[in-house]
Amino acid sequence: MPEKNSINNDLKEVNNLLRKNIIKEKTISNLYDYIFKKNGKQLRARLSLISSSVDRRQGKKRYKLAAIIELLHNATLVHDDVVDDSPTRRGVKSVNNIWTNAHGVLIGDYIYSKAFMLMVELGNPKILEELSNATNDISKGELIQLDAIGNKGISLSKLEDISYFKTGRLFEASAKCGALLSNSKDSYVKNISECAKNLGIVFQIKDDLLDYLGQENTIGKPAFQDIKEGKVTYPFYFAYKNAGIEDKKILLTMLGNKKVSHLKVSKLVNKLGGIIETENLAVKYIKKCKTSALKIDKHIQQEMLKLLHSSINRNK
Amino acid sequence: MPEKNSINNDLKEVNNLLRKNIIKEKTISNLYDYIFKKNGKQLRARLSLISSSVDRRQGKKRYKLAAIIELLHNATLVHDDVVDDSPTRRGVKSVNNIWTNAHGVLIGDYIYSKAFMLMVELGNPKILEELSNATNDISKGELIQLDAIGNKGISLSKLEDISYFKTGRLFEASAKCGALLSNSKDSYVKNISECAKNLGIVFQIKDDLLDYLGQENTIGKPAFQDIKEGKVTYPFYFAYKNAGIEDKKILLTMLGNKKVSHLKVSKLVNKLGGIIETENLAVKYIKKCKTSALKIDKHIQQEMLKLLHSSINRNK
Repeated sequence: MPEKNSINNDLKEVNNLLRKNIIKEKTISNLYDYIFKKNGKQLRARLSLISSSVDRRQGKKRYKLAAIIELLHNATLVHDDVVDDSPTRRGVKSVNNIWTNAHGVLIGDYIYSKAFMLMVELGNPKILEELSNATNDISKGELIQLDAIGNKGISLSKLEDISYFKTGRLFEASAKCGALLSNSKDSYVKNISECAKNLGIVFQIKDDLLDYLGQENTIGKPAFQDIKEGKVTYPFYFAYKNAGIEDKKILLTMLGNKKVSHLKVSKLVNKLGGIIETENLAVKYIKKCKTSALKIDKHIQQEMLKLLHSSINRNK
Repeated sequence: MPEKNSINNDLKEVNNLLRKNIIKEKTISNLYDYIFKKNGKQLRARLSLISSSVDRRQGKKRYKLAAIIELLHNATLVHDDVVDDSPTRRGVKSVNNIWTNAHGVLIGDYIYSKAFMLMVELGNPKILEELSNATNDISKGELIQLDAIGNKGISLSKLEDISYFKTGRLFEASAKCGALLSNSKDSYVKNISECAKNLGIVFQIKDDLLDYLGQENTIGKPAFQDIKEGKVTYPFYFAYKNAGIEDKKILLTMLGNKKVSHLKVSKLVNKLGGIIETENLAVKYIKKCKTSALKIDKHIQQEMLKLLHSSINRNK
């Protein structure tokens, strides 16, 4: 029997809100419906629902906030697919693939601005501030990453910045806004934000790892995509750092090579400690996440640790 | 001697604000500086400055509002250039041309979200509401237009919707927010918004006309771009409506034909009344614009009529 007041039940309300699309224009509603037909993991919406669940009297505002966060996240995904020229998303064709890049850019803008409209309706200045800052940081992270393509000399701290801006930042904002909505104590706002931020970074590191583990069937997107696109992520970074002159040369021939052998990449990056060192980095952020979680009330703490657990153990 | 308190002086303050770019990241500041190096006409910023000039005690808030509007406008331009695959903007290479589509998408998102951050700082809920709605309407207009490519059966009212959403809407919001900032009477808010909205539609109609008049040197962008892209605008719409069976066939061979003869398009569209009927439509909106202008106090009225005059008489 489903637990009353559970986060899963909340999420159903959020999805009802998201799908209540009242626009008459056929092109727009087709695009919008296509994007929100497939849910994904909705981790960010969950985070805001968990965080705001300390004050369920906020009622519909909680669902609205979670819907806003899903809108923002999906707008970035649609734009990312244009940026990466990606043919698929969540196992189905991307908007830029079925329609065009132009459609991807514009429906992304439409969804962004719709999120801002709902934020204004929510009428909480601190939430508005946090979410507009987070949106700006996300685009900042994507731009820094773009600049990092083919950049073998990128530093570890730059890679960590990218993980934070690209992924950790919206995790953090989701939890923070949930806490702000429920008018919680500053310490709760701080601890759950910190916990979510590190959870987001763990999530991103795991993403980078999955790309190099490359089980194409389970991951839902093509494997070894990052190295093929010339994107330096953690496994490559650590492998390159540990490599001798000869292996460095081989790694550089692999970076940005669309036809590279998956097996050879996998063997070399593993041999050079690229996987194990990335896993160690994940452990660092898992610890940070747990440390903050332990400062939060039991019930919320457990929900956060469940999310952490599923983020670590996922295979897609 | 420059008049103290003139809109041109205000605009200098706005441009100082816009150029005060404090981001450390080199890629982002390069892109940002490139976009804001060349000003354009800054009509929307002017509109908001004119509209808010009834209460100069708002001081720096007036400049901030105008800067926000310029940011929003420039974000849409950068995205439009990606959408249209346009090689130039304001006579220089577009972002997507010098850098890539990916850079265009992401720096556009960066500028959008920066505008929202400044809006939140401004802290006026009505302005936030108006600008987030306007941003949403602009993307709606662009999406409807995208759908209209190659659509010979598009209705006049749909074309007018596109002109409103794409262009009139931000003109309207610029004036409205200026009036809201100055805590003006409802009648002033209403009249100047209406005046600016119609000015924007006139501006868009004139844009469509200039494309068909095609003096490539003066217009700052390649001529006959719309028909080559398959975009049905007013001159084509009216020409097609008035054409007999044979001319209709010829017009359809021209629509979306990148190598079409400029002279032949010009002659045929002119012969079929495409230019004169578009001019008549402009007159309709000029009248609407003037009617609203006459309801506004003399000083502001004159500034609005000056903008109308320069919009009508421009050749680029």
